[in-house]
Order: sequence, then structure tokens, then C-alpha cells
Amino acid sequence: MTQTNQKHAVVLLSGGLDSATSLAIARDMGFACHALSFDYGQRHGIELAAAAAVASAMGAVEHRVVKIDLSAAGGFGHSALTDDIDVPMDRDVSHGIPETYVPARNTIFLSIALGFAEVVGACDIFIGVNAVDYSGYPDCRPEFIEAFETLANLATAAGVAGAAPFVIHTPLAGMTKAEIIARGCELGVDYSLTHSCYCPARGAAACGHCDSCRLRAAGFAAAAVADPTRYATARRRRE
Amino acid sequence: MTQTNQKHAVVLLSGGLDSATSLAIARDMGFACHALSFDYGQRHGIELAAAAAVASAMGAVEHRVVKIDLSAAGGFGHSALTDDIDVPMDRDVSHGIPETYVPARNTIFLSIALGFAEVVGACDIFIGVNAVDYSGYPDCRPEFIEAFETLANLATAAGVAGAAPFVIHTPLAGMTKAEIIARGCELGVDYSLTHSCYCPARGAAACGHCDSCRLRAAGFAAAAVADPTRYATARRRRE
Repeated sequence: MTQTNQKHAVVLLSGGLDSATSLAIARDMGFACHALSFDYGQRHGIELAAAAAVASAMGAVEHRVVKIDLSAAGGFGHSALTDDIDVPMDRDVSHGIPETYVPARNTIFLSIALGFAEVVGACDIFIGVNAVDYSGYPDCRPEFIEAFETLANLATAAGVAGAAPFVIHTPLAGMTKAEIIARGCELGVDYSLTHSCYCPARGAAACGHCDSCRLRAAGFAAAAVADPTRYATARRRRE
Repeated sequence: MTQTNQKHAVVLLSGGLDSATSLAIARDMGFACHALSFDYGQRHGIELAAAAAVASAMGAVEHRVVKIDLSAAGGFGHSALTDDIDVPMDRDVSHGIPETYVPARNTIFLSIALGFAEVVGACDIFIGVNAVDYSGYPDCRPEFIEAFETLANLATAAGVAGAAPFVIHTPLAGMTKAEIIARGCELGVDYSLTHSCYCPARGAAACGHCDSCRLRAAGFAAAAVADPTRYATARRRRE
């Protein structure tokens, strides 16, 4: 139950490790959290099921899923996340814009979060971008987030009425994957509920080889936390 | 047929008078125009049919309709355009945020246009906001458009690769409704194809009393252009 004067926040929730931690941090800061996920033709509904489980476990006041059919506008472009092209495996993840880049994705997600925030009376929006993302995705960089915050305060009735009320929170911005996991564990995040793999096997087991799996596994190792991820048998065979 | 070196533009097209003129201007500037409309639970599919007719008549290279179901996120809020609340009739349209304001609408539309632009290789996006809109809608103001342009160039792979390639065009920005109509007539816009009414009668006839109808009718009168709008009989009875 939310307290009468509790502040409300919209938290973007993908079902992955980062956004689950972002939700835990928002809750720890005292916000009543409205979790928001997107069904945009991802290849894996597994992510949305994970998001629902995380929202429930972390005490979100609600969890909404917005469906956007972008197939008419190029389906967010040719991304390995939405099309039938191969997800890159075992590549060097340290630089370059990855093939999993989806044109304008975070801009679209934050825009819809902004509209939702106006509706529920929230001025705070949480997005789980982190330091690892900066190297590859232009729409994860701090200068992008700052520009969106400026936009949000010009775009809205609330922004016109108040003095720049909207704040875009990126609580993971300066954190490594290991630091994110360590913080999440302190806040009681059950990472077994989260899903990160771009290329899961039947039954939602993680592949262990895509960028996302490798960053996640390295994070658990570096944080010295037992990795709760359920991997496909193929991973063990390939290692 | 587009020329090999013709520049491409994404043009937001609502089916109304303004965006039809914006499309005509983009075409007159030499752009191959990719028209983009949104199906977001408007009460009137009439708008989308008008948009398709306008895109075809004005030689757009394609017309895409993106469906966004925002009912899960409050349906863009309580707006007379998407909900079953009454559209205001015969009100003073000179100031205040109207009830037809939809939270973050232009931010969401421009964000999706940006993703579409990256996919088709366009760096130019046209949106038909105009001087009349400024008084009421925060996301029609020039400072909002400038902030979005800044964001676009930070948000995208194209923005990272080039020196701020994205331009958000608002060709109607300084124009009155009469000036828009006069310019559109010069460029061959068939305004009988367009639809502006927020509250149409059966058969798509315009009500003649909502904000949109009244601004449109006054525009034709001021431009000394015969109004091609088909009004519902009720309009004549009320006058």
C-alpha cells in the first residue's frame, strides 16, 4: 500500500538484471514504483514474463505492458533483437555499436514513460542504463539522458506548470556489472527471476554466449556472487 | 520514382490540414517523403483514411501506420481525443492547455519518426506544428522542437557517426491557419481530402463546433479560399 504523500516514479523494466536493480533502488529511495515494460516484437516473450515476476517480487504498485507494433516502420530496423538475423556470439564487447542496437529505442521508451508519468502524477523516471552500455549504445550515454530530461520539461503540461519537475534517474550509470549485482543483492533482488540472454534455448535457459550472457556471467564472477542463471546444456558442452 | 541522390524525409501525417501542407512543402523542397501516421486509439479511423488519401495524392514514396496501444499506460491520459469524454465545443481557443492535450504525444511521435528515419536513411523529419498550436500545447513550441533535435543527434548511431545530421523541420511554425491554407493551395493540396474535426458525425462529416473545426473554418475564410469541408447538417441548424 502506498502512503498518502509517497512520491511516485515510473521505472522501465525489461526483465533483465539491470532494470531489476534499478527498480530495487527506486523502491529503496522511497518511491511508489509504476513498472513499465514494452512488447515490441522481441523474439522472446520470456523477457516480459521475467519483468512481471520481478515487478511483483519487488513490490511495484503496478506493472504495465505497452504494445508497440513497429513492423510498419521498419520494425525498429535490422536488429538481432527483433529480426531473424543471428545474435553475435562470443564477440569482443568492449567497443563499437553492436548489432543489437535498435534505432531510437530508448528515446521511444522514455517518451512513452514520460506520457505514463504525466498520467500517474509521477515526476521521476528510472532507466537502468550503465557504464558498460555507454561504449556501444548512443542512447545510453549521460549526454543523451540529460538531453531527454531537458526535453521532458519542455514537452509536458507538468513541465510548463512547474520548474523543471521531471528527473530522469540512471542509478546504475557509473556502476560496473559486478557493482550492480552487489547492490542488488543488498536490496534483496532475486536475480534468478531475471532474464538477460538474447538467444535463449527452449524453456528460457540462457545460451551463455551472447553479449548479454557473457557480461552477466562475468558480473556474477567479479561480484563473487553465485550465478543463479539457468544455462542451456549446450553451454557446458561448448566450454 | 525517387532519384538516386534524392534526399529522404520522414513526414508526420495526421490526415489533417496542417500535416498535409507540411507534406506538400517537404515534397516541394525536393525530398522523397516517407509519410508516417499513428493508430493510437483515436476515436476516428477517419483520420487514418484521410492520411492515406493525402499521402497518395501528394506523391509520398510510402505511407506507414504504426499502431501503439497505450491503453496499458493510461491511454495517453484523459484526453477528449482518445477517451469517451466530451470534446469542448465553441470555447475560447486563444489560450490555456486544451482538454485535447495528450500527454507527451509529440515526443512519442517524433521518437518513432526518428527510429523510422534511421531505418530509411533519412535525416530530415517534418512535423506540422504551427503558431496557433503554441498557445495551448507545450510540445508544439519552438523550444521543444529544438530540444528534440538536440536529443535526436545524441540518440542515434547516425548522430554519433556524423555532425548532427538530424533536422526537425516545422515549416508551418510561423504561419497562421490562413497562410498555411494559402501556401497549400499554391502547392496543389486538395484540402477536401483532409480531416480536422475532433467530433465527426456519421459519414465523417465535420461538426463545425470543436476547436479544430472552428480554427479550420476561420482559416479558409481569412485566406479567402472556398471551404471544401463537408459539414454535418447540424452545423447549419446551430448557426
